[in-house]
Amino acid sequence: MLGPDSACCAPMVREPLGEEAAAELSRMFKALSDPVRLRLLSLIASHEGGEACVCDLIGPFEVSQPTISHHLKVLRETGLVGSERRGTWVYYWVLPAALEKLSALLRTPTVPAQAGA
Amino acid sequence: MLGPDSACCAPMVREPLGEEAAAELSRMFKALSDPVRLRLLSLIASHEGGEACVCDLIGPFEVSQPTISHHLKVLRETGLVGSERRGTWVYYWVLPAALEKLSALLRTPTVPAQAGA
Repeated sequence: MLGPDSACCAPMVREPLGEEAAAELSRMFKALSDPVRLRLLSLIASHEGGEACVCDLIGPFEVSQPTISHHLKVLRETGLVGSERRGTWVYYWVLPAALEKLSALLRTPTVPAQAGA
Repeated sequence: MLGPDSACCAPMVREPLGEEAAAELSRMFKALSDPVRLRLLSLIASHEGGEACVCDLIGPFEVSQPTISHHLKVLRETGLVGSERRGTWVYYWVLPAALEKLSALLRTPTVPAQAGA
């Protein structure tokens, strides 16, 4: 895993990605490339108190609990979320440094309000 | 395509994504989920003058020109880059509003310098 201070975090408009950084970052983007997984991550990220019980994450989706569990495992293995079992339930929270790494990579210097509209 | 002002751009730590926004955004993340495509995008984004000739994009990779062309097509169809033929060559540039949309989505309020390290 690349640390939050690694060269990968420079905006790509400033310098091209090396092969190793691109491999690592593309795995993180792949974790965001499924719509259910992306919504799960956003539910965890925006959850009151900064963490969500798996019991909060099953209701909103029309997919099975094993599918949700699989998606959560992918998010965890990619380093986008942390998790901990407490009693019956597993709790999830986002790892802000990982999100920020991707955000920084895609940052552009200035975007006019209606650019590309 | 969602416009740059659509609700999708709110940071996901602030509010969860709706189904439609997640579908659109996951397609954009999927375009970034291949390491060669991600490096191609970063080469275009960081290229002097803000645009790159396809002739600048083939050299750095150990993949065939048709493969590069396919990746460029995916980036274009996802709305991450624009392109134009001028004489012999096609030129590519990033669409900053699209990159910024993804960057804004992943933005976190504060990340301590060594968080998660």
